[in-house]
Amino acid sequence: MAVYTEVSDDELEVFVAEYDIGEVQSCKGIAEGVENSNYLLQTDRGNFILTLYEKRVQPEDLPFFLGLMDHLAAQNFPCPTPIHGHDGEALRDLCGKPAALISFLSGLWPKRVEPEHCRGVGGAAAKMHLAADGFNLTRKNGMDRIAWQELFSQTKVRADEIQIGLSSKIESELTYLEANWPNNLPSGIIHADLFPDNVFFHHNDLSGVIDFYFACNGSFAYEIAICLNAWCFEDDGSFNVTKARNLIEGYTAVRPLEPAEINALPLLARGGALRFLLTRLYDLLNHPEGAFVQPKDPLEYLKKLEFHQKAGSPGAYGLGTG
Amino acid sequence: MAVYTEVSDDELEVFVAEYDIGEVQSCKGIAEGVENSNYLLQTDRGNFILTLYEKRVQPEDLPFFLGLMDHLAAQNFPCPTPIHGHDGEALRDLCGKPAALISFLSGLWPKRVEPEHCRGVGGAAAKMHLAADGFNLTRKNGMDRIAWQELFSQTKVRADEIQIGLSSKIESELTYLEANWPNNLPSGIIHADLFPDNVFFHHNDLSGVIDFYFACNGSFAYEIAICLNAWCFEDDGSFNVTKARNLIEGYTAVRPLEPAEINALPLLARGGALRFLLTRLYDLLNHPEGAFVQPKDPLEYLKKLEFHQKAGSPGAYGLGTG
Repeated sequence: MAVYTEVSDDELEVFVAEYDIGEVQSCKGIAEGVENSNYLLQTDRGNFILTLYEKRVQPEDLPFFLGLMDHLAAQNFPCPTPIHGHDGEALRDLCGKPAALISFLSGLWPKRVEPEHCRGVGGAAAKMHLAADGFNLTRKNGMDRIAWQELFSQTKVRADEIQIGLSSKIESELTYLEANWPNNLPSGIIHADLFPDNVFFHHNDLSGVIDFYFACNGSFAYEIAICLNAWCFEDDGSFNVTKARNLIEGYTAVRPLEPAEINALPLLARGGALRFLLTRLYDLLNHPEGAFVQPKDPLEYLKKLEFHQKAGSPGAYGLGTG
Repeated sequence: MAVYTEVSDDELEVFVAEYDIGEVQSCKGIAEGVENSNYLLQTDRGNFILTLYEKRVQPEDLPFFLGLMDHLAAQNFPCPTPIHGHDGEALRDLCGKPAALISFLSGLWPKRVEPEHCRGVGGAAAKMHLAADGFNLTRKNGMDRIAWQELFSQTKVRADEIQIGLSSKIESELTYLEANWPNNLPSGIIHADLFPDNVFFHHNDLSGVIDFYFACNGSFAYEIAICLNAWCFEDDGSFNVTKARNLIEGYTAVRPLEPAEINALPLLARGGALRFLLTRLYDLLNHPEGAFVQPKDPLEYLKKLEFHQKAGSPGAYGLGTG
């Protein structure tokens, strides 16, 4: 929930004049997304999302993110399409910040995940992996294992304020993952943040995927591992195998998994859980007084990590193989 | 900026089924308005605002607010129209809170007020005063002089934390206003919160007035006094007489002012400034740690109050009479 930058009428008018989108009818700040300022802009020609990129997004990454959306949309992947101005540019300046106008996707993100949603997101992840093939820019994962070490070094002295023993649990997991991380898995461009609030549905039919601002090069199976963490646990911490099976079936119906990918899933799921445990821990320990957003609970991801540690084999995720 | 209540898909579906508005396409929390939870709901038939009334609105006042919007819209006043369900009701329960669906008004509120906007809002205030005639419910102003005394009694011991001497300034103003407040001015239903963010324009043409949740019975000239405070001061604290003249001309073109109303304006403007000084002071002193909204500066209204104290006669507002 956040609108950080308020756009004046004059600035908006100058900005919109760069595009062939008609006359502005309304412009409302959207209370979703915590990283950027988002406005729902309505003109006599349709609806658009106006995004001002705030400090968490690196400006030099924006050509990758916008170019990826252009590329995916051209492959008929259901994602927002950057609108290009009269000058051909999709990225320009507004209120001193990088800003872009993208097409509006209808649909609702599932506040309560149903098993059918998981099939949809699995299929969409696979479609995105295939559709991104041929996109010619690359981006390193900013939340890779080096970043995890860095986050840990910045949180370890205070981690036990959140739970006694947390610091040593993270340290031993980092050591284990470092020693066992699989290499040479099939890879390409992944979304890397496919959480429910980034996936829209009409009832149970997926209508679109948004928020590509963590997209990067990585292994496809790691994307599935993040999805298992984000979509398949119930509020009480239990793991819903039906959801996991649907998710993986949805994926493999579009892009079959290789045995090495299936075997790597439990370990990648541990990595995915640790990644969100670390970022949530960092955000909680560095939460400014009076900030707009409530920090999320890192311990939710400790529980998920512990589930994956015990899982051991792909069978725990409803997979026959392994 | 606030969405306090998150509506689940299931709850939204049950709610929307009570209306004849088509199929939900999207529902986005709006980061505007600090009192209620507002969503922009899009269906295949159009756009609507879904409002959940949070604690600051008294549920027993809602029939007045919604009935007033119904009444004004029927008189072609440009305001949101409550949507009535299959059962005829405009007010029902959602997530345990009173909730209503209202029509969506296009337009932008002026982030930078131009003199022409002031003419528009003056005219709209007068039209509303006339259009509300015949509405058969009444509501006492919850921010009347008794409420000011109450707010002062809750803030006076800490007011000097904000500025030395503030407490005694407020006290002497309250005494002065109590002794000199005009009675028997023409009255009826007023909006009582006609600030720029509640008035939409397409360029310089007023397209609608929103947020009737402070509307009440009161003197018409007090509405103008609030508008003078809200629309006619520049950011540097200076008073823009052109804006004031436009505002009053816009008003009187629709509803002429009586001499008693004109003569009362300086005093009513003092009252209007004190009202917002007191509520801002209260909000600042009672601002919860970590709240979503930044408290507004009460001293902005102290400066406005001091302008009105010096003004003395209606001439200071660009009025010939007095």
